[in-house]
Amino acid sequence: MANKVFVGTSLDGYIADRDNGLDFLESVPNPDGHDLGFVSFMKSVDAVLMGRKTFEAVLSFDMPWYAKPVFVFSSTLKEVPAQLQGKVEIVSAPLKEVIKVLTVQGMKDFYIDGGQLIQSFLAEDMIDELIVTQVPVLIGDGTPLYGLLPRHLEFELVKSEVLLQALVQSHYRRLRKESKEPVYE
Amino acid sequence: MANKVFVGTSLDGYIADRDNGLDFLESVPNPDGHDLGFVSFMKSVDAVLMGRKTFEAVLSFDMPWYAKPVFVFSSTLKEVPAQLQGKVEIVSAPLKEVIKVLTVQGMKDFYIDGGQLIQSFLAEDMIDELIVTQVPVLIGDGTPLYGLLPRHLEFELVKSEVLLQALVQSHYRRLRKESKEPVYE
Repeated sequence: MANKVFVGTSLDGYIADRDNGLDFLESVPNPDGHDLGFVSFMKSVDAVLMGRKTFEAVLSFDMPWYAKPVFVFSSTLKEVPAQLQGKVEIVSAPLKEVIKVLTVQGMKDFYIDGGQLIQSFLAEDMIDELIVTQVPVLIGDGTPLYGLLPRHLEFELVKSEVLLQALVQSHYRRLRKESKEPVYE
Repeated sequence: MANKVFVGTSLDGYIADRDNGLDFLESVPNPDGHDLGFVSFMKSVDAVLMGRKTFEAVLSFDMPWYAKPVFVFSSTLKEVPAQLQGKVEIVSAPLKEVIKVLTVQGMKDFYIDGGQLIQSFLAEDMIDELIVTQVPVLIGDGTPLYGLLPRHLEFELVKSEVLLQALVQSHYRRLRKESKEPVYE
């Protein structure tokens, strides 16, 4: 059972620029349409969990819809667009409860997507795998991937590789050994 | 001629924790005292430039002093400790002027050290090489390596390697081609 993040960031850790733009993520030429491991990653999860803002952003992209069930965390959204009925469900319970319910339904591995949802999962130490692809550009401002944490979270490096001669993709797994780091109250 | 950064950060981009601690940088076991490329890096520069805070932090460390001349940016510091006379000089001119003066003195390659000084150099697009070693821990708060920038700065990836089976060290070089990124005013 694992909650996984698969995300691209600028060198300074942003997932979108200050105008919510994602162009910087495409600044590296990719003539052959390398999927950067995304297809294989998607095969490794049973469902996609995302926040409302990410859902709305994704809706606006011209891309094929996810092959896995999508759950959108939102307390304001009431229904999903007609063409996504049956593919998308809105949830609004606390993270742990949602995971518990989905687990009871037989799902085990989750793709946690969207800046705020990732931060919420990390704040509760509920992320098990982190696959981060760093694009070699500093953008200086925008939506940061990481946020405040109640304590240090140690990871082990599973693998790191260079893609397209420009991107550094590193795969981390949460190390939940006894930590000597301070727990902030 | 190059201004270079050689720095260790947490996965979330901090160079010190919120108590100015650096323990997290040592969280990866290093039984053989691997220098992570620092000795070879130091050979590649002619001088070290740092801010006042970094200078004072470095003074408090029990470590051998730099083999290269050190220049400390400060408008408040008036003199250096007796044992460092001749090894450390205080400078307070604008960055470009300091680099110009040192270049006239025959120095070409500079190690730019310390969070604030690195940010100032980046803000003026005066960093040519960036060697960042990422430690696999999220600390959530502290002194960030990167700051606001007037525009996007693109780099090319020179090399990325895994050290001590845990650290990802990536070497970037500034790409000063015509950029299509927006310039923020």
